[in-house]
Amino acid sequence: MISRYARKEAAAIWDAAMKYKIWFEIEAHAATKMAELGVIPTEAAETLWAKGKDAQFDADRIDEIERTVKHDVIAFLTHVSEIVGPEARFLHQGMTSSDVLDTCFAVQLQKSADLLIEDVDFVLAALKKRAMEHKLTPTVGRSHGIHAEPVTFGLKLAGYYAEFTRARKRLVVAREEISTCAISGAVGTFANVSPEVEAYVAEKMGLEIEPVSTQVIPRDRHAAFFAALGVVASSVERLATEIRHLQRTEVLEVEEFFSAGQKGSSAMPHKRNPVLTENLTGLARLVRSAVVPAMENVALWHERDISHSSVERGIAPDATIHLDFALRRLANVVDNLLIYPENMQKNIDRLGGLVHSQRVMLAMTQKGMSREDSYAAVQRNAMKVWRGEGNFLDFLAADEDVSKFFTRSQLEPFFNLDYHTKHVDTIFARVFG
Amino acid sequence: MISRYARKEAAAIWDAAMKYKIWFEIEAHAATKMAELGVIPTEAAETLWAKGKDAQFDADRIDEIERTVKHDVIAFLTHVSEIVGPEARFLHQGMTSSDVLDTCFAVQLQKSADLLIEDVDFVLAALKKRAMEHKLTPTVGRSHGIHAEPVTFGLKLAGYYAEFTRARKRLVVAREEISTCAISGAVGTFANVSPEVEAYVAEKMGLEIEPVSTQVIPRDRHAAFFAALGVVASSVERLATEIRHLQRTEVLEVEEFFSAGQKGSSAMPHKRNPVLTENLTGLARLVRSAVVPAMENVALWHERDISHSSVERGIAPDATIHLDFALRRLANVVDNLLIYPENMQKNIDRLGGLVHSQRVMLAMTQKGMSREDSYAAVQRNAMKVWRGEGNFLDFLAADEDVSKFFTRSQLEPFFNLDYHTKHVDTIFARVFG
Amino acid sequence: MISRYARKEAAAIWDAAMKYKIWFEIEAHAATKMAELGVIPTEAAETLWAKGKDAQFDADRIDEIERTVKHDVIAFLTHVSEIVGPEARFLHQGMTSSDVLDTCFAVQLQKSADLLIEDVDFVLAALKKRAMEHKLTPTVGRSHGIHAEPVTFGLKLAGYYAEFTRARKRLVVAREEISTCAISGAVGTFANVSPEVEAYVAEKMGLEIEPVSTQVIPRDRHAAFFAALGVVASSVERLATEIRHLQRTEVLEVEEFFSAGQKGSSAMPHKRNPVLTENLTGLARLVRSAVVPAMENVALWHERDISHSSVERGIAPDATIHLDFALRRLANVVDNLLIYPENMQKNIDRLGGLVHSQRVMLAMTQKGMSREDSYAAVQRNAMKVWRGEGNFLDFLAADEDVSKFFTRSQLEPFFNLDYHTKHVDTIFARVFG
Amino acid sequence: MISRYARKEAAAIWDAAMKYKIWFEIEAHAATKMAELGVIPTEAAETLWAKGKDAQFDADRIDEIERTVKHDVIAFLTHVSEIVGPEARFLHQGMTSSDVLDTCFAVQLQKSADLLIEDVDFVLAALKKRAMEHKLTPTVGRSHGIHAEPVTFGLKLAGYYAEFTRARKRLVVAREEISTCAISGAVGTFANVSPEVEAYVAEKMGLEIEPVSTQVIPRDRHAAFFAALGVVASSVERLATEIRHLQRTEVLEVEEFFSAGQKGSSAMPHKRNPVLTENLTGLARLVRSAVVPAMENVALWHERDISHSSVERGIAPDATIHLDFALRRLANVVDNLLIYPENMQKNIDRLGGLVHSQRVMLAMTQKGMSREDSYAAVQRNAMKVWRGEGNFLDFLAADEDVSKFFTRSQLEPFFNLDYHTKHVDTIFARVFG
Repeated sequence: MISRYARKEAAAIWDAAMKYKIWFEIEAHAATKMAELGVIPTEAAETLWAKGKDAQFDADRIDEIERTVKHDVIAFLTHVSEIVGPEARFLHQGMTSSDVLDTCFAVQLQKSADLLIEDVDFVLAALKKRAMEHKLTPTVGRSHGIHAEPVTFGLKLAGYYAEFTRARKRLVVAREEISTCAISGAVGTFANVSPEVEAYVAEKMGLEIEPVSTQVIPRDRHAAFFAALGVVASSVERLATEIRHLQRTEVLEVEEFFSAGQKGSSAMPHKRNPVLTENLTGLARLVRSAVVPAMENVALWHERDISHSSVERGIAPDATIHLDFALRRLANVVDNLLIYPENMQKNIDRLGGLVHSQRVMLAMTQKGMSREDSYAAVQRNAMKVWRGEGNFLDFLAADEDVSKFFTRSQLEPFFNLDYHTKHVDTIFARVFG
Repeated sequence: MISRYARKEAAAIWDAAMKYKIWFEIEAHAATKMAELGVIPTEAAETLWAKGKDAQFDADRIDEIERTVKHDVIAFLTHVSEIVGPEARFLHQGMTSSDVLDTCFAVQLQKSADLLIEDVDFVLAALKKRAMEHKLTPTVGRSHGIHAEPVTFGLKLAGYYAEFTRARKRLVVAREEISTCAISGAVGTFANVSPEVEAYVAEKMGLEIEPVSTQVIPRDRHAAFFAALGVVASSVERLATEIRHLQRTEVLEVEEFFSAGQKGSSAMPHKRNPVLTENLTGLARLVRSAVVPAMENVALWHERDISHSSVERGIAPDATIHLDFALRRLANVVDNLLIYPENMQKNIDRLGGLVHSQRVMLAMTQKGMSREDSYAAVQRNAMKVWRGEGNFLDFLAADEDVSKFFTRSQLEPFFNLDYHTKHVDTIFARVFG
Repeated sequence: MISRYARKEAAAIWDAAMKYKIWFEIEAHAATKMAELGVIPTEAAETLWAKGKDAQFDADRIDEIERTVKHDVIAFLTHVSEIVGPEARFLHQGMTSSDVLDTCFAVQLQKSADLLIEDVDFVLAALKKRAMEHKLTPTVGRSHGIHAEPVTFGLKLAGYYAEFTRARKRLVVAREEISTCAISGAVGTFANVSPEVEAYVAEKMGLEIEPVSTQVIPRDRHAAFFAALGVVASSVERLATEIRHLQRTEVLEVEEFFSAGQKGSSAMPHKRNPVLTENLTGLARLVRSAVVPAMENVALWHERDISHSSVERGIAPDATIHLDFALRRLANVVDNLLIYPENMQKNIDRLGGLVHSQRVMLAMTQKGMSREDSYAAVQRNAMKVWRGEGNFLDFLAADEDVSKFFTRSQLEPFFNLDYHTKHVDTIFARVFG
Repeated sequence: MISRYARKEAAAIWDAAMKYKIWFEIEAHAATKMAELGVIPTEAAETLWAKGKDAQFDADRIDEIERTVKHDVIAFLTHVSEIVGPEARFLHQGMTSSDVLDTCFAVQLQKSADLLIEDVDFVLAALKKRAMEHKLTPTVGRSHGIHAEPVTFGLKLAGYYAEFTRARKRLVVAREEISTCAISGAVGTFANVSPEVEAYVAEKMGLEIEPVSTQVIPRDRHAAFFAALGVVASSVERLATEIRHLQRTEVLEVEEFFSAGQKGSSAMPHKRNPVLTENLTGLARLVRSAVVPAMENVALWHERDISHSSVERGIAPDATIHLDFALRRLANVVDNLLIYPENMQKNIDRLGGLVHSQRVMLAMTQKGMSREDSYAAVQRNAMKVWRGEGNFLDFLAADEDVSKFFTRSQLEPFFNLDYHTKHVDTIFARVFG
């Protein structure tokens, strides 16, 4: 985890403090149910909660114990007994370490998913705000990096809004995928612990029961979770790439916010670089790098092996923390984006009207010209404009084949931007309701 | 696409014939709606359907035309006009090539998803059948490849059943992700084609409308689709790996079906190798290799670039066809799996009762011994068994610390397998209802 | 393998015809050596060569036989016996199928590597030609997509030349990695075949002996091979991305060659799109997708399992054929690239001299101004230019802090492009020698 | 970076302290050369070295300054001036931040490569030691997890030795790939800094000059570096997987060292799990996850963008530190591996002689029986053994077709292990020289 790309809310989920708090809750809820089932004394369970609920577990002390007992859960339980006293021996009865570890992992991923969903909401809010502002701001649509036909800047943002709505849905599904609890013992048979304990802990921790666990929760769930993060990261990359393109010196239709006194480059005082969105591009690659190892983790041997563990110690905090950071940064970039409608207009005009070529062509076919001839007529005039020889409307008006059908004043309306924005309301209604 | 790993039903979806059939339907449905909107003559639309509906489009002829016009959709339309006559000129009015290509791609992926869902149903059926047969067949559960505690073979299969139930759900979601239709023109503004055309074609083709398309359908949808396939492939790998392990010479609890006269190895006549599940392991890697490029495809430039196209020409047929093949092969392997309960029992017995070590330890703690002492007592006797010096029960009965609490006949019940299978019904009910 | 992205020279390497030719050579060379060692009759080996050397093996016939015997190498040997007669029974003595398969695979990969190295030579030649032409053509260097300082177009290309020199070296190493021969029997012990046979066949086939094979050639070699291809593909992507950027409407410093009569878009007659380099971007993703499965193939179980085989049936032809195609396409794109020096100059001038900001700042620090003050003075004038308020030189000349040190005519030389090109010769000498 | 999988030697390379030390050296060497070139005063350079050489740069102080100046290199230079005094202003003249950052990165990667090469040497030493010990220890070779024919345990290890020899070579090449120095200014033209400075610093830092840098060192070098690490990690995975297989309860031919008092499982006192090699399997996945993002980093825009930076902040320490840890752990595992020759022999015998099936078959073909008939005769007897009905030799001796050629005593020598080990010396000579 790279600390400069970590918000403290996201990083805290993976802190030792949070982990031990969750471990305690799992063990203590299990104890409550075991007491109810008569497996352990009721007063023991009550004492555990009374003394442990608000306890601060000491990670250093637990590490110290672990160096002796060489087992993380045993070290934790030993430390709990230092805090709550001898009743601690009633904890963990018939349970296996993975019951605690995997259920805790589910809680951590769920909390991370909650943050990510909230983050996407910030991105959505920023996109909506700016989309509404620029609903009808004309800008050129580009295919292949080449001017195509006019759109509006609001439409662009509406498209991203729709994409992040899907991202949100994927995160909700991903959250469900990993929100399960397993307390089923060494090979998942509940030999030494009742399924009722699992059901109780699941409910208390906000999880579903895992239908079949085998000491561990099956890792296809986690693969699906990290795959979803990879898709969301790819959407971050797309919007980041759009902004980077639009900020290029030659395009300059938008800029990342640049504060007074900020330095774009230590060497070149004139620079204003889209460094935030470049950073988001890199973070997207990092988040995506969790996907393949998470999939490779699925095929554990038999009831379980522990090869997934080191992988998850890396990718789980890294991917969730960095995606959280990326989404927040993205929301800020969009919210504060400097948008230059005049430059957009200048760019539309740059091709001397060529962006209307399709409309002229279609108009001629409607007059009866074949599509091939019409295409040829429009293209030969377009290429002159492309070579910088003049204006498209002028060339068309002067073209013999074109002027057969249209006078200059009849051609003029084909260069009207409104033609292209007539369905903006329809699209906005689809996206924003 | 590797033809030996392709079923013809799956491959047919990506055939030229299927593609042109879908193209025609998209164009002809659009024409019907355009006629209704008064954009083209009603009779034209009717003629198109009458003459084109059952037409066989000639892929070679279309290729021939494409070599001249250098455009696939134009070549197709030209060929359609050869079949349906001059009314073909009313096709594709105001549409852009991607309207046809991307909507067709959605239909192809949807059809592929339908097959994959059906395939998973075969896997599920086979798993359920064998799980029911072996619901109570004892077998050893293994963690880290080392004997842990007893489970049943039916429980193992129930776990895979639950996993493939999730796989099915993921495929259903993936199918939804890519089932959208875009007929919105060069940059998605509907400048030259009404949104009503899109809505009509979508409904006829069994798709939803794409809320915002930008000449293309956004590629986050496809990334999510291929990511889902990657997760499903990883589940295939897990079950395949399980079978490979269980077929090892030293384990031999199951075998892939081996027909009379089959040769396991040309050099070694004694061999019976799990080659089908090894093959499935490889196919899982292949299917998974589509995930990263699909994610890299998301960040197209501006309204679209065409970098995704070559990627999809590769991964779309490859990943869907190979996963379809893999799932069918897996269903067959499970359905015909040779299962050896006696060998399972032999393996359980191999550790001389050690798989009951936890139960003995817990029993001693319940008698008041500390967990540490109990662990030590059990471990020191277990290690003797491990070294092949004798039987666990004998050593325990002879151990001073153990015999303080339990006589040999009191120890015996701890070696009972039923203890471990008492919740099989509960788990089966969770999985199979 | 996608046939539209395949040159026939590259695809032929993976044809059945080529495979059977190589198989025959391996078997026949082995026979020659076995005859020399007295294992089989000398005349048998001679007959084999005499009748088989120029034989056309019939892939359909072999497939037919394989449907009966269910073994590819046995089917081949059976067909060979149909051609060369009973002496065929002396082939393959003491050998195992993998001896033939893996050694053949090495030859195929080696041939592919030869093509790829030749392809890179074409790329290098094109880059060098254009670099020489534009050695001193000024163009703006861009960091973060924002104008930085001037470079020359030749320098850009020299950088790519250096990169493809490294690509070539990587391919040479990769070729070496996979150029080994294994004829060592069922588990690599040479129990039934002499190491001398392996040495002889290796030499004849242009390979090294594999020091330790275990029925198979170890797959770390192949992982290294495909990883090298992935790196080379990434370099293809970088150059393709550069060209795509430079062809953007607003930049237009270069264009892919566009033939008379070509159609950029069926809908928009004015378009000229960088579709070749976009395609290369996609192909790079495809080639790269071979890297991870090739690495996952390394950890075969014990002496071998066959999970790698299906993976290699996919990635080996796909990655080599598509990279071959991509490199050739790239060479053509570079060779025929339309280069617009006037547009480059226009773009340099677009920022009103801002690209010289560093030089002005350094000059002021050399006059004794602190770096901070100098930066601030230059930046405040730069931002005016950035906002489109005028020319950089004018603002600087009018600035109080600047004019303390420099008159307008003293400032003018700082705007000289030659300052930036003075080391072009040095760099060219490093690259081109 | 996961601290529990980090050796301090490897982690130290990525510490702030190491980074600032390297930065200082780069800047100070550049100053020395600039003084020699007359760009800055000689005494300044001397003072810099005198005061800075052994200085401890204070990372917290630099962070504090960075919070004000928002630039890491400027913050560092400011802190240097606090230590060495006003002469610090002569540092960094005409240089750009990347000159320092990228050259430092090269040094860090080079140091990491040095460690990794040393680590592989430990692995090689351990493998060689154990290979020599068990050069002739018979063990069964397995293909597809099924017994094939005998090998020796030393041969197995020799194969891994050969593989890690290749790993070492790959690391040496990877080290070369990234050992370059760039001090070429904002866009790589040396406009404000002489190429002689770069050459001098390169030599002093143990690097080569980068022929063409463009503010940054081109990232194909780094992609090749991390790809090499991914291949090496895959070899780690292969050996780890071998050990995990051999430690399975049913196989038990080797075990990871298990200290007295160690606990294999908190719940099951009898367990001894191959947790170290399982951990190595996971670490291999983690290291490999760096490969794809490193390749995605290659296609930076134009002269550079900064998207690679966040990626490298993650993957560079993570991949190098974890691979270093993995290699050391692997060396220890091999060095201390518990090896059980008796179990190996028991396993060989488990198939009742079946592992000699090829030899019997070949012997019969040499007597004139057709390969098909011979195969059938051997297979039908083998299948009886497979079904547990008895001993292979007995069945063969009793078989009508076999006894035509061989008496029981003539069959017996075919069951001799020496036949399979006769070329062990040859292979050892190839590997160990």
